[in-house]
Order: sequence, then structure tokens, then C-alpha cells
Amino acid sequence: MKIIGVFPGSFDPFTKGHENIVNRFLPLFDTIYIGVGGNTSKKYMYTLESRIQHIKSIYAKEPTIVVEEYEGLTVDYCKSKKAQYLLRGLRNTTDFNYEKSIALMNKELANIETLFLMTDAELSHLSSTIIREIAKSNGDITAFVTNYSELIIQ
Amino acid sequence: MKIIGVFPGSFDPFTKGHENIVNRFLPLFDTIYIGVGGNTSKKYMYTLESRIQHIKSIYAKEPTIVVEEYEGLTVDYCKSKKAQYLLRGLRNTTDFNYEKSIALMNKELANIETLFLMTDAELSHLSSTIIREIAKSNGDITAFVTNYSELIIQ
Amino acid sequence: MKIIGVFPGSFDPFTKGHENIVNRFLPLFDTIYIGVGGNTSKKYMYTLESRIQHIKSIYAKEPTIVVEEYEGLTVDYCKSKKAQYLLRGLRNTTDFNYEKSIALMNKELANIETLFLMTDAELSHLSSTIIREIAKSNGDITAFVTNYSELIIQ
Amino acid sequence: MKIIGVFPGSFDPFTKGHENIVNRFLPLFDTIYIGVGGNTSKKYMYTLESRIQHIKSIYAKEPTIVVEEYEGLTVDYCKSKKAQYLLRGLRNTTDFNYEKSIALMNKELANIETLFLMTDAELSHLSSTIIREIAKSNGDITAFVTNYSELIIQ
Amino acid sequence: MKIIGVFPGSFDPFTKGHENIVNRFLPLFDTIYIGVGGNTSKKYMYTLESRIQHIKSIYAKEPTIVVEEYEGLTVDYCKSKKAQYLLRGLRNTTDFNYEKSIALMNKELANIETLFLMTDAELSHLSSTIIREIAKSNGDITAFVTNYSELIIQ
Amino acid sequence: MKIIGVFPGSFDPFTKGHENIVNRFLPLFDTIYIGVGGNTSKKYMYTLESRIQHIKSIYAKEPTIVVEEYEGLTVDYCKSKKAQYLLRGLRNTTDFNYEKSIALMNKELANIETLFLMTDAELSHLSSTIIREIAKSNGDITAFVTNYSELIIQ
Repeated sequence: MKIIGVFPGSFDPFTKGHENIVNRFLPLFDTIYIGVGGNTSKKYMYTLESRIQHIKSIYAKEPTIVVEEYEGLTVDYCKSKKAQYLLRGLRNTTDFNYEKSIALMNKELANIETLFLMTDAELSHLSSTIIREIAKSNGDITAFVTNYSELIIQ
Repeated sequence: MKIIGVFPGSFDPFTKGHENIVNRFLPLFDTIYIGVGGNTSKKYMYTLESRIQHIKSIYAKEPTIVVEEYEGLTVDYCKSKKAQYLLRGLRNTTDFNYEKSIALMNKELANIETLFLMTDAELSHLSSTIIREIAKSNGDITAFVTNYSELIIQ
Repeated sequence: MKIIGVFPGSFDPFTKGHENIVNRFLPLFDTIYIGVGGNTSKKYMYTLESRIQHIKSIYAKEPTIVVEEYEGLTVDYCKSKKAQYLLRGLRNTTDFNYEKSIALMNKELANIETLFLMTDAELSHLSSTIIREIAKSNGDITAFVTNYSELIIQ
Repeated sequence: MKIIGVFPGSFDPFTKGHENIVNRFLPLFDTIYIGVGGNTSKKYMYTLESRIQHIKSIYAKEPTIVVEEYEGLTVDYCKSKKAQYLLRGLRNTTDFNYEKSIALMNKELANIETLFLMTDAELSHLSSTIIREIAKSNGDITAFVTNYSELIIQ
Repeated sequence: MKIIGVFPGSFDPFTKGHENIVNRFLPLFDTIYIGVGGNTSKKYMYTLESRIQHIKSIYAKEPTIVVEEYEGLTVDYCKSKKAQYLLRGLRNTTDFNYEKSIALMNKELANIETLFLMTDAELSHLSSTIIREIAKSNGDITAFVTNYSELIIQ
Repeated sequence: MKIIGVFPGSFDPFTKGHENIVNRFLPLFDTIYIGVGGNTSKKYMYTLESRIQHIKSIYAKEPTIVVEEYEGLTVDYCKSKKAQYLLRGLRNTTDFNYEKSIALMNKELANIETLFLMTDAELSHLSSTIIREIAKSNGDITAFVTNYSELIIQ
């Protein structure tokens, strides 16, 4: 049986912290789908197309990874991909509480398990929210995001 | 002296976690008012009327419970009901920090105490916020909310 | 039906934080038993007799409170007193995690509920452990413990 | 070398908790700049001008403190003031996680350190967010904010 | 390549919470070694032999699982078993902080990753420490530990 | 007035995390006393003499730092050194809760303030407790402790 994982998020933007988690999950999986949420009720800083393109540029040479948009329930997306596992990183205890609720509800909804890795020490303070604040003030975020030039502010 | 409690919230929607807390506080109180916040500056998913009707349907046979809208300060609502206690559930440490601030400020404002119960283990991951996300994606939330059909999306 | 609570602990020593919690639970209960753990495998700083005498001295004029030693399971002690509720204070998130585990296990063991209050702001940093450290170094702990002179170091 | 600090925030409003932190940092610094964020994408309850005037009224007799608006990156503001330190208070673990991320990112961006004090016990439950909720419901917040009459709702 | 995991612990005793984590990791792994720490400086409640025998009795029909003692560094044990992953459960934020430190140090020591699952909701309050306290007071812990009769108090 | 700080601890051993905190506090202080606790009731892994000698070897060329034993209350040691500030690092929320209690009690005892820095990201998982466990199992801890050879196991 193929072992298939889904790494879901809005990735607004996809940071070196996200990259760290995906890279470390890679050896365990036959395919990892990076599902980019297109949730239309939220306001994103970067366009959906550029968020997808940005992540594709990072994994251009990695055939195990598929980057695509998804809509609707995350567990339905998993089922459509025959994925057995959701994949997430944990940075701190605020993350922990939120991710625990989501993971247990996803398990109840569709019996899909969520596997976690601790974000590596030197990256565990990175946050898309804070990076957006820095970018809005014209700060340099290239230390926090690979291939930043792929992203287009909407 | 009658022992009167207030369980305040926006209940958007009232989950099985809320229900768990109210049910367990019942034996201690002569009356529990479930005060449904009508705070007009926030956007709710379900109409105020249906949120109230929903909770009333759950407690239709429970004379100790009164479900009603309230506006203004929670402590003023307590005083108008001659309630000595606010009632709240605790799920995790993010809840804890928020509830502690609110409880201590309410005590300072009006000398009203807040009593807490730990949400039962099998329900402590339920969150109105996550349930709304699932409902928006047409997920089935009937496992998390009793009498879900009473709720009307606005 | 009488409403009876148990406030259990080793109280090595009983601090102004403990006192704060008991005093605020008083109006809800017909009797509160302060159960002083005699757990013989732990090393205490103060003798069991003086820990009991110390708390009795604080509540000498409070007929609602009974101070006594207890051994064995806390839930068995509750049952022997016909107490429906365990009573505990919460200071911070480390407390929260520990108390949540204990409360849920006690509920599973004997269907006894635990009610919580948040320790008042100006006392929520008090800790028996730190107070003992200060006392061992001959620091003055009278600001943290009422009637400190009742306690006898063993 | 002069020791210069920046205490940044939106201060919507500046609470007795903020005041507590600034007052306790004062003896260490030659100048403390209280930088009031003018971030135009956020909605504030009080006007920028009145938030600045409010804080100035509190420190009218304190020559060590300069209150002013700032825009853009906090670390750029620090550099423009030749400040070596950002100053922040910590109330609870939710604060801690957020402030840790910000502090480490600011250090990476511009090698500026953030110094922390624990908010004093009797003020550590104060929160601008909760105070705004109370003010919106016409609650009395004068116990939580010095010189409240200086603030103008926009 | 075989995917091999190590689930290390003192298991004093192995609870239904531990069992939950191992069972859910099973489908991902070719072999899971449950390594029972023989750390001689700590005092355990149950004998090492019975702790091993106890876990073996639970997994008697599960060929994927090997239960054995290990001594020395956990990462050295992993290397001796050619295991690529350490496996751990997370219950709450106190766990999280401790496990994060251990996981990051093990990665630095030997480049071994730790995979985490959230303990299922109805088991996440179980703790070996609290179970031992209950057992010492002759409480019934059969609801928390499978095959409890295999364990021998030393 | 000279600005004097005390960095207290048992330093069993002094890790690169401690070193990180002291180095970053250095520019603010005229003298920093690293006070090594000689608390005789605790069992330490390394001798008191070697713990002091170890830290001295790290700061041999740093005249601002004085390393010495202290006994008794930390605040009394501060007063004897005319230190206005205690200095501490914060790694995670478990640290935070503990350090907050200590800091507020020290302020109440002797009006001495505690200043905090967040331990740098790549070191915030280091813990003396875990390092001792690794050392006991003959693991290599030279990545976590500078000048490890100075330490003598007692």
C-alpha cells in the first residue's frame, strides 16, 4: 500500500518552517500533497496562484511532492487523494492546543490521523502572520521564506 | 438564598461541550441562565433567534434552565438576575489564559465569582470556531452539536 | 440535600493562596472538609499535626469548615464524607494540566466532580514549594502564610 | 553610551499593566520611547491622537519618556532612535508564545534584543482587548486605565 | 527500506494512553520496538521484568511489535535497531515542552527524528504518575491499564 | 550608580543556553554575579567546586563577570552585592510559569526586579536535566556545554 500524506494550509506565505516540516516527512511517504486552501471568505495577502507557484518552485525537483489547490473539508481532500495521514508541524503550546483540537475533530469526522513533527529549533519562531506584518512594512523577509520573489501581493 | 448562575456566551453554535458543562453545573444551582450574547459588532454564522431557539430545544424539559438574549456587560446581566456565579468550562491552556483574565476582571468590576469545570475528556477538543469551519465546507457536524437542525445560517 | 465539598492537599504549608480559594468557595457549601494528606511516602517539611493545627487556627471561628487528616484515595475520602465536589484553585497553565488530569481521573474512578476557582490575581504566584525554599533559607514567609507560628518543622 | 529603549504597541488603550511595565523599566534607561503604532490597516477603538495624548498625560512629569507615533517596522523605528532594546511585559503563556516569536524575529532582522519583565501580579489579568469590550458595553474601566478621560473613541 | 520505530519509556506502568499511541503508529511501521528503560538510578513501582511481561501480554498477537529492555542513550538504542524514528504521544502542553526538548536534543545527538501523535481525547488525561498514586492507595486502576494483573510491585 | 545583576542557579551544568543569556545581558551591566547555589539538600551531579571552576573557565577573559558560590536566599545574596536585578532566561511556557512565581515572590520579599531574555532559538531546547541524563548514559554533551572537561562528577 502506498503511504500518502497531506500537508494542508493557507501558506500565506509558505515559510522555511513549513519547508522544514515537509522535508523531514518526505522519507516516510510515497506522495505528499501540499494542499493550498482556497477558502474564499478569508483575505489573503498573496494570490492563490502565486502561493501555489511559490511552493512548486521550491519543490520543482522533488517528484514525491504535489502542490495543488483544494477546497472544502480537509478530510474530504485526504479521501480524494487516498491519503492516510495529515501532516503538521508544532512550534509552541498555542499551536499545540489548536492543532490538537483540529486533529481530534478530523479523526472523529473521517478516521484520518494527523502526524506531527516538532519544527526545528532555529525555525520554530517563524510565523506567517508575523512575516506578513514585516512584509507590509517593507521589511526584508527573504531570511524566512525561500524563493520569495515568486509571491504576488493581491 | 437561591443559588443562581449565568452561563454566558455567543454559542455560535452551542456545542456538546457547552452542553456538558451546563449539565454538570445543574445540581448545584436553583436557576441557570444561559445568556446568549447579542453583541451586534461581531458577525455570527447563525441568527441570534435560532441560537436561542436551538438551546431552548435542548433544555425543553429542564425547568432549572432559562435561555435568553442579553446585551451589555456580562456582570450587569448577572446582577439583573441576582446571580452570584458565572459558569464556564475549561478545555485547554489557551482557554485558561483567556478565561482567567475575564474572570478576574469581572470580579474586580462587580465582585462576581466565576466557577469552572473541566470539559469532559471526550469533548474537550470541540470548538465552535472549528465547527463553523466544518459547517461552511458542508461537513457533517451532527456529532458535535445536539439538535443541529434548529440552527439557521444568516 | 446538603452541599458538601472537599479541599484536599498536603498543605506543606497552607498558603494565603489556599486560604483565598477556601474562603471564596464557602458561600456555596454547607460543609467544606479540608483534607490534609498524610501520605507517608512523601517527605514533608512541617509535621502532619502542625499542618492540621495551622489550618484549624485560621478557621477557628468558621463552623462550616472541618480540618482533618485523610489517608487513601481522595475519592474514597469524599464518599466517606458524602461530599459531591472536590474543590481546587488554579494559578497557571502548569497547574491546569495537572489538575485537569486528576479531575478527569477522579470523575472516572468515582463520578465525583471537581469545581475550580481562579486564584485571585495578587496571590496566584504563591507556591508551597517556593515558600518552603524561602523558609529553608530562613526567609520571612509571614507575608505568604497566615498564622505561620503554628507550623512545626519536622 | 546612552541606554535607550523602545516600548512599542498600539495601546488601544494604554492600561495600568503597560504603565506598570514602563515604570519598572525606567531606572535602567536614559530614554524610553513609547512608540504608538499607527498601522492603518487595523481598526482601533480610540483615535491615534488621543492614544498618544493619553500616554503623554500619564508621563507629563517624566522627562525620560518620549511618546510618539511610529510607522513601519518596529526594528527600523528602534534604529532611528538608536535604541538597543525593545521592552515588553509578559502576563501569561499565550503572551509568552507570541512575544517569543516576535522577539526572535526582531533579533534576526536587526540584531535588536527584547528585554522582558513579568507584569506585576495584581495587574497581569488586564488586557486591552477585554477593556475595549467593557468600554463598548459602557462599563467603568477607570480601575484599569489611568486618565481614561483623555481617550477619544473614533 | 524497512521503516522501524522505537517507542521508549519507563512504562511504570504502560497505560491505555501508551497503548493508544502504539496501536495508531502500527500501520506506518515494519517493526516497532517498545524499549523499556532499565535506568537503575530511578525508583520504579513495578519490577522491570513485570513491566516488560505486561506489555508483551498486551501485544502477544502482534508480530510487528518487539518489547525489550534497553539501557543507555535512547538514540544509541535506535541505532542498534536501525530505527529511523522515535515515536511519542502528546497529551497536553506540559508534555509538549518536555517532549520538544528531548526530540530536538535527540536530533542533534544522532539525527534521529521523533514522530508524534495526539493521544486520543478520552485517554489524554491518563498519567502513569497519577495511576501509581491511585494504585498505592489501593484504588482500582483496571480502567486505565490493560492486563493489570501482569504487573508486580517491587 | 553602577548597574549590577545576579544570574543565580545551580548550573548542574552551566549550558550553552545559560551562556547565551549571560552574554546577551552583559552590555547592560557594570557587573554580573553568576551565583552558584550550594544548596546542600539537593543532590548535584557535578561538584560545587567544579561547577564554579567550569563557569570561571568560560568567562576567564570577561572582567564584568564574577563567579561565586552563594547560600541562603537569592534576594539576600542580591542585597549583599548591591544588585538591583536578577537575570533569567526563558525557554518555554513551563519555564515561564515557574519563573513568574519566583520573580513575583522575590519582588515581594525584597523589591528586587527580575529581567528576562528569551533564550535564542537554536538553544532554547537545552536543559540541564536532559543533559545530565545524556551524560549519565555516556552520551557526548560537548555540543551543549562549553569547556565540558572542567566538570567533575561527584
